[in-house]
Amino acid sequence: DNTTSPHPTLDPQPSTLDSQAIYARGATDDKGQFYTHIKAAEAWSKTAGRPPVNLIFVIEGEEESGSENLEIFLEERAADLKCDVAVISDTSQYAPGIPAITYGLRGILACEIIVEGPSRDLHSGVFGGAVANPVNVLCAIVASLHDAAGRVAVEGFYEQVLPLTHEERKQFAELPFEEAAFLKELGVRGPHGEPGYSSIERRWARPTCDVNGIFGGYTGAGPKTIVPARATAKVTCRLVPDQDPAALTEAVRQHCEKHAPPGVRLKFTAQHGSPAFLVDPKSPYIAAAKRAVAKGFGKEPVLIREGGTIPVVESLKRRLGVDTLLLGWGQNTDNLHGPNEHFSLGDFHRGIKASAALWAELAKD
Amino acid sequence: DNTTSPHPTLDPQPSTLDSQAIYARGATDDKGQFYTHIKAAEAWSKTAGRPPVNLIFVIEGEEESGSENLEIFLEERAADLKCDVAVISDTSQYAPGIPAITYGLRGILACEIIVEGPSRDLHSGVFGGAVANPVNVLCAIVASLHDAAGRVAVEGFYEQVLPLTHEERKQFAELPFEEAAFLKELGVRGPHGEPGYSSIERRWARPTCDVNGIFGGYTGAGPKTIVPARATAKVTCRLVPDQDPAALTEAVRQHCEKHAPPGVRLKFTAQHGSPAFLVDPKSPYIAAAKRAVAKGFGKEPVLIREGGTIPVVESLKRRLGVDTLLLGWGQNTDNLHGPNEHFSLGDFHRGIKASAALWAELAKD
Repeated sequence: DNTTSPHPTLDPQPSTLDSQAIYARGATDDKGQFYTHIKAAEAWSKTAGRPPVNLIFVIEGEEESGSENLEIFLEERAADLKCDVAVISDTSQYAPGIPAITYGLRGILACEIIVEGPSRDLHSGVFGGAVANPVNVLCAIVASLHDAAGRVAVEGFYEQVLPLTHEERKQFAELPFEEAAFLKELGVRGPHGEPGYSSIERRWARPTCDVNGIFGGYTGAGPKTIVPARATAKVTCRLVPDQDPAALTEAVRQHCEKHAPPGVRLKFTAQHGSPAFLVDPKSPYIAAAKRAVAKGFGKEPVLIREGGTIPVVESLKRRLGVDTLLLGWGQNTDNLHGPNEHFSLGDFHRGIKASAALWAELAKD
Repeated sequence: DNTTSPHPTLDPQPSTLDSQAIYARGATDDKGQFYTHIKAAEAWSKTAGRPPVNLIFVIEGEEESGSENLEIFLEERAADLKCDVAVISDTSQYAPGIPAITYGLRGILACEIIVEGPSRDLHSGVFGGAVANPVNVLCAIVASLHDAAGRVAVEGFYEQVLPLTHEERKQFAELPFEEAAFLKELGVRGPHGEPGYSSIERRWARPTCDVNGIFGGYTGAGPKTIVPARATAKVTCRLVPDQDPAALTEAVRQHCEKHAPPGVRLKFTAQHGSPAFLVDPKSPYIAAAKRAVAKGFGKEPVLIREGGTIPVVESLKRRLGVDTLLLGWGQNTDNLHGPNEHFSLGDFHRGIKASAALWAELAKD
């Protein structure tokens, strides 16, 4: 899961089962989706005595609070976890009736930029014009992170970017996507972003540089005539293959330092970083997953990427050397993290079938 | 007064009188300074039966809370207040031993700029790159308010600016001013501002555009990966003669609208505006005040401007058609609004003498 929806203001519904769906926190994110794999293993055990491949289940309950212990677990138990491929069902279908395999995720780098000016807030009448204003300076630094066309202007930012292939662009363009409805649902007036790319490409496969929060000076009602002592911006860049979070964090730092005038102190704090994830869409594991999903859902899955970051995917690659198949059975509309979160019984059953088929497909390779 | 120092964290001292100074809230700002004029009138009455000119005293107690009723009073009682010139002692000497007449103040325009993007905070992984980020947009708008050299880039901003005369620049340059000490006291690393002007000129006689406060998105500890729904900046421009607050507020609005991309909604709110104030330093009133201050203080006053705004000065001009003599007897170091605010008895007595002399000087004209 990678949503920021607030937790429900209504009480979460007690777990209920109707003819259409199961309603509960975690129904789709992620107990319900995970449970399909348990049920698939159970089905194999009941009918064939055992699944056709060896399965190791890793069930983690801390994802919503930072997964602090997962990395330690993967490190300590790496020998026990040795495997050929990982499977995570924590994404979604592309849309109802359009099952999907997610073969790419964006990475991230996060930093905090603080600009410090005078040692205290100053009267803007008495001193304004003769001291660098930290908020104005911070705004200039943030503005300098993009060029006039909307590209990230940090030196070398795009150097390691793996371009979308012609085939990927064609596949993405063929996905059903109503831009007007998409924008309307978000409440924005029009599209925006890097020139030369579609909204889907911008979200899934192009890097970004977004301010997540900014504050400085007086934030109450009405005016207050000060030159603030400091200003802070929280910035994250979404990264794509093969951008290096550490190298680009350093590039962003240097960019900020270059754009800070001598009258201020710049404090740049690097926070977490995680590289993007990409499985070759032509890999045999993806091919096996495509056949399995087609069997379970009665329909060929589309190959998609997503714009968020699932850090464990990178950890699995780094710790165990394996790729991850991201097979989502739920829907974007399942209202995860919201009131009445649910998971369609149809998707639940199709997910079980796809999982069961996957073990068979993987056994063939 | 135009300071923003916080109110004292220590209890204000009970009013005390020692051989050097009177200590009390208002000792210098502004009961003590005002009282010199009462004492001067008293001295004239006791020695000559009455002052040599007609005096009207307007004593206002609401200056620190916005002077809401003063404008109404000036409007309703304009006929009773008819006069040739106004005198306000609410400024300071330039420095100890350097009495000053303030013949110019900066004006102000205040506005609030809100950039609205999506109808809710969005996940920066899922949506980042495909929607305009209101904080990034606001930063770009704020950055665009200045050019690379540090001049305000709003169209027409400098068109009505009355340039400093050669004589003014010479006078200001001759004032004792230690830039290194000035910067050190403020805690800033170096000078900053419009190229071609000294720190004094930048503060007293050049217009500015300062962000007083900014906020948007996540402002707690650590990162949060959102594209914020909105961002707000509070902006004030200090104005100089003959800039028009209303016209420039409109120019700033148009500038912001021009720099807002189509993917966002811009909400621009004009707040208060007040023009700058300037008395001809060669006017007969200034000449009379110079002679009076020289008599009271035993030293020729310097002619200075200040960077702040005293709105009543503009009201007196507009309502009564008169200029104001800003004659400050106190010191910048009197700690007004702070603990142990004080007013030197020497300055108090010299102020009384200067005031008494002023009535005589004005009677001559």
